[in-house]
Amino acid sequence: MKTTDIPDIVIGRLPIYLRSLRRMHQEGRQITSSQELGERLGISAAQIRKDLSQFGGFGKQGTGYNIDFLANQLESILKLDRVWNVAVVGAGGVGRALATYGGFLDRGFQIKLIFDNDPAKIGQQIGKFIIQDSKRMREAIQEAGVKVAMITVPAKAAQEVASELVEAGIKAILNYAPVNLTVPSTVRVQHIDPAVHLQRMAFYLE
Amino acid sequence: MKTTDIPDIVIGRLPIYLRSLRRMHQEGRQITSSQELGERLGISAAQIRKDLSQFGGFGKQGTGYNIDFLANQLESILKLDRVWNVAVVGAGGVGRALATYGGFLDRGFQIKLIFDNDPAKIGQQIGKFIIQDSKRMREAIQEAGVKVAMITVPAKAAQEVASELVEAGIKAILNYAPVNLTVPSTVRVQHIDPAVHLQRMAFYLE
Repeated sequence: MKTTDIPDIVIGRLPIYLRSLRRMHQEGRQITSSQELGERLGISAAQIRKDLSQFGGFGKQGTGYNIDFLANQLESILKLDRVWNVAVVGAGGVGRALATYGGFLDRGFQIKLIFDNDPAKIGQQIGKFIIQDSKRMREAIQEAGVKVAMITVPAKAAQEVASELVEAGIKAILNYAPVNLTVPSTVRVQHIDPAVHLQRMAFYLE
Repeated sequence: MKTTDIPDIVIGRLPIYLRSLRRMHQEGRQITSSQELGERLGISAAQIRKDLSQFGGFGKQGTGYNIDFLANQLESILKLDRVWNVAVVGAGGVGRALATYGGFLDRGFQIKLIFDNDPAKIGQQIGKFIIQDSKRMREAIQEAGVKVAMITVPAKAAQEVASELVEAGIKAILNYAPVNLTVPSTVRVQHIDPAVHLQRMAFYLE
């Protein structure tokens, strides 16, 4: 099966498996099973075996999975055996938290550029970054060959920023603005909106 | 159909519909259709009609949906016709960004409590909150009757915090720590991990 035929929902579970495997590896573990991984993640062992079988066999029947080997394979499938540079647009609270977050590099990403349109913020330092004028965004992203961006601007500005990022060559957008974005089908978008997650859980509250 | 029989994946789409409807309402719009909503969200019109039909009819055939009415109905279904108090555990970059974010109240939530275990942070002010000692967490959450929490502590501390929150009566956890959590089946957990979202998109990069 070509990897392009694999459903996105399967791809979406691989980073979850990877995160859990890396944690087991840190705990000094060497071998795991689909049963154990499933129990940790609340996913059935059958689902995990089926997902992994789409990419070929990673374990021998009855001997389980070698944790480090499987994690490395998943990283290779997900194209995380390199480091992707990331641009952040919006230097408010979320942008600042992302720019100073230490957890990206181990997982395949590093922030390289941060932009804002507020003259009071442009030129300021966040962590090791200088906030750049968003007027320079397109040029700077193209120069650096960055393909991944995070949008942390207010909702009303997010679509315009997204369209500019697409013109600059961005192919993957993580959108923190609480609004849907319209982009060409060649560009991937994922949304993080804490209120949406909270609302989904509220349904079950009493 | 009892609402408890409705698949969680359907419940998960309702906040997305709601967000889009509220935006249309802000734009001064009064009537929409499953076609228009679907185009905005990249979801098929048939899926939207099927999802909404699980809760009864919200529009007359051929006349579309009244935006404000449908949004109010979705808020009622999702139990957002009240305000849920929220506790934040962890006053690092993410906790601070959440505590000062102005977008929760309109969507059914307000942060009431924020905790940390770092003596240098306890007693400090973030926005309108004083950071409280996490030793007081259980007591303070029970006193305030809070049912919803957000975890923004480092990965290694997250499970212990989650277990304490469950003991304190928390029923819904939004977990920002990059680690899976084990909680009783009576407690809902949602995860926000930007690296997981980025990794899922990296698969499609070239």
